[in-house]
Amino acid sequence: MIAPGATIGILGGGQLGRMTALAAADLGYACHVYAPEPDSPAFAVARSTCAAWDDLEALDQFARSVAVVTLEFENVPVFALERLARRVPVRPGPSVLAVTQDRLAEKEFLRTNGFPLAPYRGVDSAEGIGRALRELGGPGVLKTTRLGYDGRGQRVIGSPEEVEPALAALGTRALVLEAFVPFEREISVVTARRADGARASFPPVENRHEHHILKTTIAPAPIADALATEAMRLAEAIAERLGVVGLLAVEMFVVSGGRLLVNELAPRPHNSGHWTLDACPVSQFQQLVRAICDLPLGDPTPFAGAVMDNLLGEEVASWPELLAEPGARLHLYGKREVRPGRKMGHVTRLRPLAGALMR
Amino acid sequence: MIAPGATIGILGGGQLGRMTALAAADLGYACHVYAPEPDSPAFAVARSTCAAWDDLEALDQFARSVAVVTLEFENVPVFALERLARRVPVRPGPSVLAVTQDRLAEKEFLRTNGFPLAPYRGVDSAEGIGRALRELGGPGVLKTTRLGYDGRGQRVIGSPEEVEPALAALGTRALVLEAFVPFEREISVVTARRADGARASFPPVENRHEHHILKTTIAPAPIADALATEAMRLAEAIAERLGVVGLLAVEMFVVSGGRLLVNELAPRPHNSGHWTLDACPVSQFQQLVRAICDLPLGDPTPFAGAVMDNLLGEEVASWPELLAEPGARLHLYGKREVRPGRKMGHVTRLRPLAGALMR
Repeated sequence: MIAPGATIGILGGGQLGRMTALAAADLGYACHVYAPEPDSPAFAVARSTCAAWDDLEALDQFARSVAVVTLEFENVPVFALERLARRVPVRPGPSVLAVTQDRLAEKEFLRTNGFPLAPYRGVDSAEGIGRALRELGGPGVLKTTRLGYDGRGQRVIGSPEEVEPALAALGTRALVLEAFVPFEREISVVTARRADGARASFPPVENRHEHHILKTTIAPAPIADALATEAMRLAEAIAERLGVVGLLAVEMFVVSGGRLLVNELAPRPHNSGHWTLDACPVSQFQQLVRAICDLPLGDPTPFAGAVMDNLLGEEVASWPELLAEPGARLHLYGKREVRPGRKMGHVTRLRPLAGALMR
Repeated sequence: MIAPGATIGILGGGQLGRMTALAAADLGYACHVYAPEPDSPAFAVARSTCAAWDDLEALDQFARSVAVVTLEFENVPVFALERLARRVPVRPGPSVLAVTQDRLAEKEFLRTNGFPLAPYRGVDSAEGIGRALRELGGPGVLKTTRLGYDGRGQRVIGSPEEVEPALAALGTRALVLEAFVPFEREISVVTARRADGARASFPPVENRHEHHILKTTIAPAPIADALATEAMRLAEAIAERLGVVGLLAVEMFVVSGGRLLVNELAPRPHNSGHWTLDACPVSQFQQLVRAICDLPLGDPTPFAGAVMDNLLGEEVASWPELLAEPGARLHLYGKREVRPGRKMGHVTRLRPLAGALMR
């Protein structure tokens, strides 16, 4: 057990790292944030190291200063994680990231372990894409295997003539073509897992996107109890099979007939879990700290329902009205520069939850 | 209005400063903590300056680095506050602290402005104490006028022969003798006030002490609605008369017949307001940030009742059980050294509140 008073290392300095550091401080931990960007928002609330991911000396010094390492940025190079892991527990570890950093490896992992997902093909040429489109029997979504997020690195392909422009736009041949799945809604589950296998899941939430960026999370998702239970079971089974220590966010599609298809995995705090800060006895960020420090996991049962809206780009200018709105919980990330679509903050509004226990 | 992104200066580096810095970060502010003690818990979550209160150069540099100054330690010397106030708004300001730092000045302020308090006499000799005891007509509590807290700097005096030993123990002649008041319970109100006079009060809470140190806060206090309203009215009137910008905590005795007597004022976040972190839409710490930055004050209406217990000294060793207790909200302050009676953390347990609105 890594007791309060110890220092937690956090890789990545964005809002997820910042909120993790705040949650760790609330339990008496110190944090040390490592990130390459000088203006990282998390630097302001913890000790910080600003260095590149391939700065081995900085990585070694960082490893010596902390009791455990976690991450808020899932594209930390695996070699950097392995370097850190020589000296200190890295949670989640390099083998988890090796899978989730590569969309094709992730899908292969899911498929070979029997988890449900939409049909897909790994492709690396126009001919391959044409063949895959025919095999999948309909339109598809062409995605880069690496570094895609918030809709970057993907294109919908409905017909063969859209292949070449898409290839040019994506600028890489390391690609996956997914069958386009008409879905009823998108949901996600954030589950926590300790090294000894203990686990706890927040209930599934529904996510609504605008221009491929998460805009709104509705918690809990308005789905049948049996489907919610199945979504949590699925997330926990994936976390177990992957060997995640920390958090795993699992995005899923609900397709017709109430079936679930896994869309994406993220082994870190997730935007769709921000509502837990205001509506659960333990937030996803505190739960991460508990999981990586071998502490008892907290109770993930919400005491309220919630609607969380991201403040993207210039939307953050509405902060004075949000502060004046009774009951609106505003969270801002301390980012200096406003850019279109940039996640500047979020606001959560609670609502009564049928049958909620106040505890 | 001091907008998110600005830097808030905090004088004092204890747990109140730490929790203020965490709340400020959650609204997108940066913080700069100034404190003389190298091991100040708040240093870990903000930019920090470790310097003495009479280090004028450090004070000037600090003032240049921040948009507004507040405090978590009410005994910051008034000359230091005045020095800072030449360059930057200090909230609450030097004139407030000049009153609340001196127990006799505070009582004179309350008395001359017609606020209810127990009979008292300023005394500076054994003869004066004897005379005051006779005038007050019963036992009294002898207190130093300055730097008393958590029961330090006070002695109960029931008879003339207890005077000399008390004088020797207190080690100063700057004293106040208060009539000993049999009270039903001790309550407190934390009220927030902006520079433009806008105000908002958390409901009164009941406080229970052990060895003169706050042990338990019960929120809201189990008192009649009319008395609760009167307590909030009193706290707001005192804050208005004092010209507080920020928070004012007002400790009161409920005496027989349901009358209120003001005991003590603290123009800062207060231990009896920690429950607001877990049971109100806005915590006392965020409310302080809102008040000093001229933001709309938050809704102080609790969505749950709460019992807050301080973890004093070795009691903090119970943290593993508290983390394992469903619904117990644990907060630790990151203090390295455990000393008897030292405030190491607190735990809040919620309970349903009749008629509470979830918002």
